[in-house]
Amino acid sequence: MKKISLLGSTGSIGVNTLDVVERYPENFQICALSAGSNVELFAQQIRKFKPALAALFDISKIDALKELVADLDVEIVSGQEGAVSAASYSDADLVVSGVVGSAGLLPALAALRAGKNLALANKETLVIAGELVLKEAECTNTKIIPIDSEHSAIFQALNGESPERIKKIILTASGGPFRTFSLKEMENVTVKEALNHPNWSMGAKITIDSSTMMNKGLEYIEAKWLFGVDTNVEVIVHAQSIIHSMIEFVDTSIMAQLGIPDMRVPIAYALTYPDRFVSELPSLDLATMGNLTFEAPDLVRFPCLQLAMDAMEMGQTMPAVLNAANEIAVQAFLDELIPYKDISEIIRMAMHNHRPVELKELQDVLDADLWAREEATKLITVTH
Amino acid sequence: MKKISLLGSTGSIGVNTLDVVERYPENFQICALSAGSNVELFAQQIRKFKPALAALFDISKIDALKELVADLDVEIVSGQEGAVSAASYSDADLVVSGVVGSAGLLPALAALRAGKNLALANKETLVIAGELVLKEAECTNTKIIPIDSEHSAIFQALNGESPERIKKIILTASGGPFRTFSLKEMENVTVKEALNHPNWSMGAKITIDSSTMMNKGLEYIEAKWLFGVDTNVEVIVHAQSIIHSMIEFVDTSIMAQLGIPDMRVPIAYALTYPDRFVSELPSLDLATMGNLTFEAPDLVRFPCLQLAMDAMEMGQTMPAVLNAANEIAVQAFLDELIPYKDISEIIRMAMHNHRPVELKELQDVLDADLWAREEATKLITVTH
Repeated sequence: MKKISLLGSTGSIGVNTLDVVERYPENFQICALSAGSNVELFAQQIRKFKPALAALFDISKIDALKELVADLDVEIVSGQEGAVSAASYSDADLVVSGVVGSAGLLPALAALRAGKNLALANKETLVIAGELVLKEAECTNTKIIPIDSEHSAIFQALNGESPERIKKIILTASGGPFRTFSLKEMENVTVKEALNHPNWSMGAKITIDSSTMMNKGLEYIEAKWLFGVDTNVEVIVHAQSIIHSMIEFVDTSIMAQLGIPDMRVPIAYALTYPDRFVSELPSLDLATMGNLTFEAPDLVRFPCLQLAMDAMEMGQTMPAVLNAANEIAVQAFLDELIPYKDISEIIRMAMHNHRPVELKELQDVLDADLWAREEATKLITVTH
Repeated sequence: MKKISLLGSTGSIGVNTLDVVERYPENFQICALSAGSNVELFAQQIRKFKPALAALFDISKIDALKELVADLDVEIVSGQEGAVSAASYSDADLVVSGVVGSAGLLPALAALRAGKNLALANKETLVIAGELVLKEAECTNTKIIPIDSEHSAIFQALNGESPERIKKIILTASGGPFRTFSLKEMENVTVKEALNHPNWSMGAKITIDSSTMMNKGLEYIEAKWLFGVDTNVEVIVHAQSIIHSMIEFVDTSIMAQLGIPDMRVPIAYALTYPDRFVSELPSLDLATMGNLTFEAPDLVRFPCLQLAMDAMEMGQTMPAVLNAANEIAVQAFLDELIPYKDISEIIRMAMHNHRPVELKELQDVLDADLWAREEATKLITVTH
């Protein structure tokens, strides 16, 4: 019986993780849960999965939650501190982080510090503080098992092989809903259009990131941290999202992981690793699918991807700035404060105005993150 | 320094193996060579790679060979016995078998009996005597590393995974030169057309087998022996021969091996396994390639594939009969004695007339093989 602490349980990854846990009641048990502010769903999850500890980030809703689960034997904690408690919960064998955004960093670090293996779906943890996170994992001899379908694919392709034999990582990208749009057409994209992802059903923030290909940019940075900063990472557009990513080895042989686009597959893999459990999900049927297509990414139409690669190249606090500016810009677009094409412009300007500093401790990341949020907000206000 | 005994050195696999060996002079050394009857090329290879032992199958040409290498310090042996000597040569760390046809069986068994790991390109070894060969490998605790691109792909996809976690093997097939031909068009196919394989440059026998999909049928049987007779093996037509085969695991996750169609890649993998060496061969460029296509195989137009699956299902000596009848029928087609469509008919009739017996020892295989050759020859004579 593997005991799991699940962070971000009411988000897309969290809900899918609980779906997986429910399918294998003999193998997994939820010992701690954390969520943001969706009190109703969180209360239902607590009732169903009976964690010993439940952490709600949104302190203002803590009383509402307590009332909903008053009849249950569960310890309720709140705020950042509460999330950290759930992340380092002593009983947990594995911590799954499906937290959205940079709020995932502190709990992830806390999990590793507590000696827990970390199944990580939260991109920002590695994007903004890759160096610190890897150092922590090394110190406590803990494993980071990626949940993102692309990084799970790379992790699986590397299984049994020496990382030194990697020639390059080939990160596949769906290209999002605007893959075939012209530059002109992309200028007038609406929130509704951007939220309509062709292959994956995900949260709003990551769906917008998919449409700008910033999602692939963040994954590019994440891949560098997970599989070696000096590893060559190439992005290829593969509209069907069937090949989830590949590794080319030094002998030119490429190992790829394929499957239907369903997050429950990589989530189950992270939970069962190094084993695989029998799944009732449908198999991929390539003969019916007919064909898989590939094309080079267009960095002119998708400047966010280039910005992310540049940020990783510049290093230090630049990826944290890229990430924070993107979060602010995407929210502004969702709030209809800025047009679609300005998302990349806000990030570009924030990066341009930033003086990167060495990333020695957590505070350096938090400072850069805060600076970039303020800078991006200022840029949005000034230019719109 | 890995010492290699190479069987079938003048064939397509042999020549490619020597090409690989030549690229890594620090790592590989040829200690023994065997060939069929191409004395001129064999003499050149002996001169270049300086084996201590050279075995020529064709006894009638032994004097010609001795004359050509008279100035060299090499022991020359001949016949079946000679090939067996090369296969069990004491210095060899690895035996590579690129022998064509059922002539590969005895040397392969000899290699395993001598405790040598066997890099196997010869399909017939497993097709006609899979049970005996696996028993021998188990007794002597030796490894069979497949060289066929499909089985190498499956072997690589399984690397680091438990064979018990295989849901099915997905064997890819190019579909050969007649993939898009109608039944009517296939009736009048010429030898020249059948020898024109779209993706792979190989010997005549295997190229014809590719065109009838008997090659895939033999690989189907081989895959069953290599990866478990009860393992589900599915054939899918993939015209570009880029994905060399796949494994679907119980969790629906599929691992695939991809690359340019060049036999030197799987040969090098078999030689360097479990390591991979840096290769100067070109990398696969999926973006330039654009797309990969898949379709279900048509068992009506390609009856040989169905016959092979049936033979494996029937078991015992039936696969040996399938294989021998196919060898005779293909040669008769190459000699323009029978039309293309009769290849499968000859095999079907030979199988129909055969009473399979249990495969207890080598003689059972040899008897069935001989019976099928005579039967197929008789069928060709009677019906044409």
